[in-house]
Amino acid sequence: MPHPDLAALDTPSLLLDEERMLANIERLRARMDRLGVGLRPHLKTCKSVDVARRQLAGAVGATVSTLREAEVFFREGGIRDILYAVGIAPQKVARAAALRAEGCDLTVILDSLPQAEAVLAAPGGAIPTLIEIDSDGHRGGLAPDDPRIVEIGRRLHAKGALRGVVTHAGESYGVVGPPAHAAFAERERLAAVTAADQLRAAGLPCPIVSVGSTPTAHGADTLDGVTEVRAGVYVFFDLVMAGIGACTQDDVALSVLATVIGHQEERGWILVDAGWMAMSRDRGTAVQAVDHGYGLVCDEDGRVYPDLIVKAANQEHGTIALRPGSTASLPRLPVGARVRILPNHACATGAQFPAYTVIPAKAGEPLRTWPRFGGW
Amino acid sequence: MPHPDLAALDTPSLLLDEERMLANIERLRARMDRLGVGLRPHLKTCKSVDVARRQLAGAVGATVSTLREAEVFFREGGIRDILYAVGIAPQKVARAAALRAEGCDLTVILDSLPQAEAVLAAPGGAIPTLIEIDSDGHRGGLAPDDPRIVEIGRRLHAKGALRGVVTHAGESYGVVGPPAHAAFAERERLAAVTAADQLRAAGLPCPIVSVGSTPTAHGADTLDGVTEVRAGVYVFFDLVMAGIGACTQDDVALSVLATVIGHQEERGWILVDAGWMAMSRDRGTAVQAVDHGYGLVCDEDGRVYPDLIVKAANQEHGTIALRPGSTASLPRLPVGARVRILPNHACATGAQFPAYTVIPAKAGEPLRTWPRFGGW
Repeated sequence: MPHPDLAALDTPSLLLDEERMLANIERLRARMDRLGVGLRPHLKTCKSVDVARRQLAGAVGATVSTLREAEVFFREGGIRDILYAVGIAPQKVARAAALRAEGCDLTVILDSLPQAEAVLAAPGGAIPTLIEIDSDGHRGGLAPDDPRIVEIGRRLHAKGALRGVVTHAGESYGVVGPPAHAAFAERERLAAVTAADQLRAAGLPCPIVSVGSTPTAHGADTLDGVTEVRAGVYVFFDLVMAGIGACTQDDVALSVLATVIGHQEERGWILVDAGWMAMSRDRGTAVQAVDHGYGLVCDEDGRVYPDLIVKAANQEHGTIALRPGSTASLPRLPVGARVRILPNHACATGAQFPAYTVIPAKAGEPLRTWPRFGGW
Repeated sequence: MPHPDLAALDTPSLLLDEERMLANIERLRARMDRLGVGLRPHLKTCKSVDVARRQLAGAVGATVSTLREAEVFFREGGIRDILYAVGIAPQKVARAAALRAEGCDLTVILDSLPQAEAVLAAPGGAIPTLIEIDSDGHRGGLAPDDPRIVEIGRRLHAKGALRGVVTHAGESYGVVGPPAHAAFAERERLAAVTAADQLRAAGLPCPIVSVGSTPTAHGADTLDGVTEVRAGVYVFFDLVMAGIGACTQDDVALSVLATVIGHQEERGWILVDAGWMAMSRDRGTAVQAVDHGYGLVCDEDGRVYPDLIVKAANQEHGTIALRPGSTASLPRLPVGARVRILPNHACATGAQFPAYTVIPAKAGEPLRTWPRFGGW
């Protein structure tokens, strides 16, 4: 039975299934315990103090993607140990230093000497830093054997700011199945450990060896030499993660509640009031074996309708139709009927909404509202 | 010369070139004057009371895509005549009626009898309504000769709620050049006028004949029988509109200011702190003759770098590179350098930000901040 309060919600609304979320959190926490490494959840997915609190229990600290996230999670969430995991712009050093002056144990990352010089010149003293390593050609970072790692390391260490190395196998999102994710996890591990060994061989300290992505965190067989793992989307999961086998569709904790506003019978279309403003423009499953359009349609209780997807989206219109070639039949969904739509990408869809409407894990409890924030 | 205050801005920031915006507003206003029809700007693009005020001068009223837009523009912007141009969900009737009770002259649209019954049963009396007509198979609406138009019209008219017809040629975004846009404009006009004639032939009133999209508004040769034109993205324009010849790149008033945070020299990549969270996931130019990736890169003063695009985006990382096959050379942009990125789709990119930073039309004036809103 759908939660009785759903009928009174305005649409589109962002629903969070607390039971699924708690299971997702517990699943990764138990895994990291078994592997004997710390977990540092990436809060860019949730952008919510309420969600973060649940993710942080037993974790070594938090990861963020913007200084605004660091500020909100520290000031409003009381989270002290925060890694800002996007290469620092020199112009952002003062703001990072201000947060440290308030008592936040903020660490930054970088992969060049000009950034290191900026971090060393921070007001109030050098900011603790990880050197970014490139493990898979995804975006930033130095190759694990790049001699600049030691050069930058020396410069940072001279002012006591060298904390270690960090890498992220972003390309792991493009491969399917646990064995492929395990291979990327080993690549990530090897890159970080190689870079750490390079620093240590030069007589430099490297207490932190940080790796991670949701697929590699769930795929890793061993994490020898790694001290902490970062992951973000594991908390909600989404269709992209289900498409690469990092979870099942039944693990996806986020969905968008929408209302039917019309039909084009001859074309087999059902129109709803969730367009790309609600779902986001993310089409992450377009490159996967099964393309879910702008999302996979479920009934109000979260049961997937076979082959029913949001095939097109305008700003505030979603066009629901059966997947091309499907032999399923279109469900009867009159004007005013409600559906739930699983998103391609939880980080992108979540960011379109000001708050989560939480369906509580405990039966009989009312819906709750957990605010989200955005901006930089 | 770039505005002197840009250097102090945090990045990513959403920049609005006021001079270009005012020229865009004036261009469409003058065109509608020449064609002798009213203009009803669609405020879903700007979601800003400050921008709306400039668009509404001389207009017949506003168009919105959500009830929240209607509420904010009425309560905070003092805009009374508002068309909510997404098929009304029965559950939203009470909220629409509440806004009317406050004094807002809100009109809704629909294309089915169940919606009409809901609108007629609104608390406080039937809500004025336009019947939605499908002119190009884009999404909702009845075919111009569908007998249900009269059936619904009669039902609405019995309670004095029939105001007219409305259509939108969304498919015009997919064709290139003014002649093609003119053809779509004629299709839009003909569909709306045919439906209006059907109502009138049945003895029903049809005072409002509403058409529009940015390409057709700028492409229309004649608008006989039309009373008002709706358009939204004309206010800022974007790369998609430039790609179909509805504007030039020099008309695009919106850009994202970003900071260089790293390089991968061997790959020819420049990394910036504007990823898809800033640019949105909109890849509208991917289907056009020239694909701009996640945006076209300009210097801090807004001059386009030849062939330089955001070729890939993660949540907070943009990867800038030369277009494949380009013979241009990569500009020297060291860590800390600033660029401006023109967006594929102004509505989508704008929605990622809490405010515009306005570069004033008048030289010597300081930057201004105009808040934006989101949600439903």
